[in-house]
Amino acid sequence: MGKGRLEAFSDGVIAIIITIMVLEMKVPHGETVQALRPLLPTFLSYLLSFVYVGIYWNNHHHMLHATGKVTGPVLWANLHLLFWLSLFPFVTGWMGENHFAPVPTALYGVVLLLAAIAYWILQQTIISSEGPQSVLRRAVGSDWKGKLSPITYLIGIAASFREPWLAQACFVLMAIIWLVPDRRIERALKNSQGA
Amino acid sequence: MGKGRLEAFSDGVIAIIITIMVLEMKVPHGETVQALRPLLPTFLSYLLSFVYVGIYWNNHHHMLHATGKVTGPVLWANLHLLFWLSLFPFVTGWMGENHFAPVPTALYGVVLLLAAIAYWILQQTIISSEGPQSVLRRAVGSDWKGKLSPITYLIGIAASFREPWLAQACFVLMAIIWLVPDRRIERALKNSQGA
Amino acid sequence: MGKGRLEAFSDGVIAIIITIMVLEMKVPHGETVQALRPLLPTFLSYLLSFVYVGIYWNNHHHMLHATGKVTGPVLWANLHLLFWLSLFPFVTGWMGENHFAPVPTALYGVVLLLAAIAYWILQQTIISSEGPQSVLRRAVGSDWKGKLSPITYLIGIAASFREPWLAQACFVLMAIIWLVPDRRIERALKNSQGA
Amino acid sequence: MGKGRLEAFSDGVIAIIITIMVLEMKVPHGETVQALRPLLPTFLSYLLSFVYVGIYWNNHHHMLHATGKVTGPVLWANLHLLFWLSLFPFVTGWMGENHFAPVPTALYGVVLLLAAIAYWILQQTIISSEGPQSVLRRAVGSDWKGKLSPITYLIGIAASFREPWLAQACFVLMAIIWLVPDRRIERALKNSQGA
Repeated sequence: MGKGRLEAFSDGVIAIIITIMVLEMKVPHGETVQALRPLLPTFLSYLLSFVYVGIYWNNHHHMLHATGKVTGPVLWANLHLLFWLSLFPFVTGWMGENHFAPVPTALYGVVLLLAAIAYWILQQTIISSEGPQSVLRRAVGSDWKGKLSPITYLIGIAASFREPWLAQACFVLMAIIWLVPDRRIERALKNSQGA
Repeated sequence: MGKGRLEAFSDGVIAIIITIMVLEMKVPHGETVQALRPLLPTFLSYLLSFVYVGIYWNNHHHMLHATGKVTGPVLWANLHLLFWLSLFPFVTGWMGENHFAPVPTALYGVVLLLAAIAYWILQQTIISSEGPQSVLRRAVGSDWKGKLSPITYLIGIAASFREPWLAQACFVLMAIIWLVPDRRIERALKNSQGA
Repeated sequence: MGKGRLEAFSDGVIAIIITIMVLEMKVPHGETVQALRPLLPTFLSYLLSFVYVGIYWNNHHHMLHATGKVTGPVLWANLHLLFWLSLFPFVTGWMGENHFAPVPTALYGVVLLLAAIAYWILQQTIISSEGPQSVLRRAVGSDWKGKLSPITYLIGIAASFREPWLAQACFVLMAIIWLVPDRRIERALKNSQGA
Repeated sequence: MGKGRLEAFSDGVIAIIITIMVLEMKVPHGETVQALRPLLPTFLSYLLSFVYVGIYWNNHHHMLHATGKVTGPVLWANLHLLFWLSLFPFVTGWMGENHFAPVPTALYGVVLLLAAIAYWILQQTIISSEGPQSVLRRAVGSDWKGKLSPITYLIGIAASFREPWLAQACFVLMAIIWLVPDRRIERALKNSQGA
């Protein structure tokens, strides 16, 4: 089965998620700069989530690039990832409206954590469906970012009840780490073509 | 006429349906765990609908994979299916907000039933447009899942007025039955390529 | 310039229009059948608009199938059509909420009329960009449906102030006429391939 | 890495942005022409933003047409552009609801300016990733429109606090200048194929 339609559907869902998050930033009723000020936390949480969804799209793009065939379990592991990503608009809006209060911040971390786990499951499902020759397996390598993420999110969730800003720092830091371009897959693809 | 654009359009509509359903889960005003609690039924009905829309996308994907040409009647049978799927966000939100009350549960079952009938019509339209050599006809075979679904939904609709939780059990059970991977079409495709 | 991305973008916009129209059907607060009753006009206007947007997608699909190259003016004529189609959710919601009152019905007719004119402009722009050998020109032929539509919509707009139900009859009748499959383009394509 | 999925994702996001902007035009409660009148500024700002997003889609389409390969930095420069475009529904709604008041008009100009800068960054990122043989570099040429835009938006932002209508004139004028078809890239592509 071709991977084209899986990519197209995932692109569609991720494009809609990244765009409808902005609908949680409700147009204010006043026409002054003061009317905008209460929206600043919502804007910042939108920015953070936009970066995270962008990272997921980017990594998903690379992962499927290194994927050969798509099986039934891969389709469902992909839908499982999209499910947790689809909760981003909700938790982003809740965290922004409540100015990074403890419980919304913790819930945001929980959704980050579950999306990271779903991404890892999808990766493992693809690798096991491809067997020992999997290009993706070699591309992923030690996968230190994939291992660091859930730990950082867990620290963020724990911190959110005492120091919500420390939790935010964890989430922002992890986003920055992911933003640094990841050349593993591109390199592995080159190697497999050169071999 | 190629099937590419039909797939792309259906993917787009299904991707939007699956994503805007989450907008029915309104961001609560409080910042505590208590503020989230009333949303639990909405979350559960969102989860159920996400799985159902995912099943429809998955099955649609397989069905069109086994389809050769796309005719005018197929385009309209497909739009008819998308119409009933487009009502999922409405019935999901109504059922969730009313904590699985009888009438919203019954209406949810009615939309499930009409979507199942629309799917069956689309399948028959494709098969009859392809003639006796249809790969899809052989792939579908006895189609016991397709025959069991409307009966289960009808039982669920009837149950919803007396025991709404029995209705939910019917809908969840049928989703689980569909989730078990369906290898009929993949097998039939392999056979037709091997012959 | 290839037409692939124009088709993909148009599919995306039309898929979103057809799906967000359902968001105008707000989830009611009661849990009874009575709570649903006021939504009946909204549901009927949603159904009518769903059919119209489906017709536009279908015809657009056929028209681009018979189109060779895409020029700058074609891109803008296409965006012009999408603009009027994008107003469907607004006029559908307004007409439904006001139970087919005169002014909303007339405005619905105006948007139908302007979309029909925009479709005609797009068709002419493609034909003139392709020159005398245009497959689309032969496919369109006498274009009696394209000529009948604006007249019917004008009659509907005029009728809406005196007999809103006559206006609805015009809109429904025209939708049914369009639903009858249009084999002109498929026939012309076959002829051009046979020649 | 192929550019197909980058185009598809960008098309998806731009298609959603252009369509959900219409959701800011809330269905009015009355059923008379008077009920529509307060929506006129919202409609006009929607029209202006529709044209701007259409211009961005059009130019993005041309730019990627002249692009060979897609690198990591290009993916992120593209997401950066989509971020500022995703704020169009918000600033369009705010400007329309407040009838082109000074601060919302200035903020609209700021988002126009930042999107223009993001577009310029994306263009430079593609050119530098392609090296001296870049088709896009020759296609862009003196890029007088790209240089005039930010200046016009800055004038508009400055004017919005004293003469909001002068600011609108700047924004409308720049949209018209962009609407005039830009044959540079098509010409450069032809030249590079002829060489």
